[in-house]
Amino acid sequence: MKNNIEEYLKKIDEIILSHLGGNHISGTIAEASRYSIKSGGKRFRPYLLFAALDAFSIPLDKGLKTASAIEMIHTYSLIHDDLPAMDDDDLRRGNPTNHKVFGEAAAILAGDNLLTESFHLIVNDEKLSGGTRLELVRIIADSAGQNGMIGGQMLDIEAENEEITFEELETIHKYKTGRLISAPVHAAVTIAEADAETASHLLRFSEYLGIIFQIRDDILDVTGDVKVTGKNTGSDARKDKVTYVSAFGLEGAKERMEQKVSLAEAELDAVKRTIDITELKNVLNKFAIRDN
Amino acid sequence: MKNNIEEYLKKIDEIILSHLGGNHISGTIAEASRYSIKSGGKRFRPYLLFAALDAFSIPLDKGLKTASAIEMIHTYSLIHDDLPAMDDDDLRRGNPTNHKVFGEAAAILAGDNLLTESFHLIVNDEKLSGGTRLELVRIIADSAGQNGMIGGQMLDIEAENEEITFEELETIHKYKTGRLISAPVHAAVTIAEADAETASHLLRFSEYLGIIFQIRDDILDVTGDVKVTGKNTGSDARKDKVTYVSAFGLEGAKERMEQKVSLAEAELDAVKRTIDITELKNVLNKFAIRDN
Repeated sequence: MKNNIEEYLKKIDEIILSHLGGNHISGTIAEASRYSIKSGGKRFRPYLLFAALDAFSIPLDKGLKTASAIEMIHTYSLIHDDLPAMDDDDLRRGNPTNHKVFGEAAAILAGDNLLTESFHLIVNDEKLSGGTRLELVRIIADSAGQNGMIGGQMLDIEAENEEITFEELETIHKYKTGRLISAPVHAAVTIAEADAETASHLLRFSEYLGIIFQIRDDILDVTGDVKVTGKNTGSDARKDKVTYVSAFGLEGAKERMEQKVSLAEAELDAVKRTIDITELKNVLNKFAIRDN
Repeated sequence: MKNNIEEYLKKIDEIILSHLGGNHISGTIAEASRYSIKSGGKRFRPYLLFAALDAFSIPLDKGLKTASAIEMIHTYSLIHDDLPAMDDDDLRRGNPTNHKVFGEAAAILAGDNLLTESFHLIVNDEKLSGGTRLELVRIIADSAGQNGMIGGQMLDIEAENEEITFEELETIHKYKTGRLISAPVHAAVTIAEADAETASHLLRFSEYLGIIFQIRDDILDVTGDVKVTGKNTGSDARKDKVTYVSAFGLEGAKERMEQKVSLAEAELDAVKRTIDITELKNVLNKFAIRDN
């Protein structure tokens, strides 16, 4: 069903851009919000949500708005992260960052807007029951809030001028990026009404995937091409951030990724008799293991 | 029931501070988010929501979490508005603004957090049916988003260096502050399951109230004491912002407020046979008409 997922990923962009471009009061808010969606990205979280729905043979239509909402939240977090008061980045996905194009005020508001409108999108999803929509708002607010992404982002900022241990680094990643990578899987098992055991294997899979994703990011920061990563090589290293590479060296980081890939595969293998894990394995192959 | 409402207003603070102070990952996020809640404010929106519930003899318990959520959204909007990239204010409610105390990064994240967690609070409100909660998320996301507060805020920023007409000023207010003043009334009529006619009178009442509130703010900016308004007198005037006072003079602004108060009262009088409008009239008297 791979081509099918690719087709649905295109629909994500259509849904988000159409929602943001409707009868808008402020053309600038619409333009600034759409800019960061249009500037690309891997759509990793929507892909993951569709792959997980596919495992349960659930029509991907049922995940379209939730996947769009999660992508909007991811995008808002990037816009705010890039602000001068935060990471102060000029380049994102190979393009000037939002505040470089629209100014800081519009970038702050565009981020606020993507976050607010993501919830709007979910509550209006007529393909899902009211109860499911409510549960999805709960999952996503929880993943994105103080005990999720925002909490982790704050820890990350506070760690910038501190010496932190590797365990502290792992905690930061777990929340800053991990929770919003688990969210699409959590959303999918909710939409699919998965049994508790299958759900818990898939949630653990998504947690390993979050770590894999972070190790890959750290490796690409050192070895990556700006054309591939969309940001300047070595930008984390220049900020003296602790990374998997600074902690364990390039080979050590790659070894750790392999270990986590094995653990993630084991979680999928544990449920392969009840669901079709093909697409979830594809996610692992496509996003996790990249030899640069 | 006035004392009753005051008692419930205290519970709002307890609910918000307890939600923000739970098992937190980042102490800084908790502290920064709680700071702006603790630094006071009139709790105008919660008051309005309770007054509207009271009109239908609905137990105020049913509005606690929604009123808390709306106050959290109002507070996040103030934190972001005060940022150097936006209004660049040092003083709010008589206290140093959030970014002055915690730095810009934490202030941006505290705002993001209050917005995200406001939705979290509503979906977990066990006093309301799932359907009502879903409708409340919809109302609030709509009021706070691109076609509400954020849209108006962007228009306001863009107007700062432009000459705008009075009609454009009214449009800005309608969205920037008006929509989040209508939200508590919209929420209350939803919780009360009001009939369409009563609901539409109360919604028009809330729209007039939004305008009254704005005129009052503009008057206080010129005549107010910093101890009362919590911000420096003349701060809008110094920014060359168009206000009701700059457009019509102080007396002209007061006359316009009186006109809107009469219109708001007429909306209440239209429904006084079916509901008890005492508390809603109190709102009008308490917040709208203040001779300084």
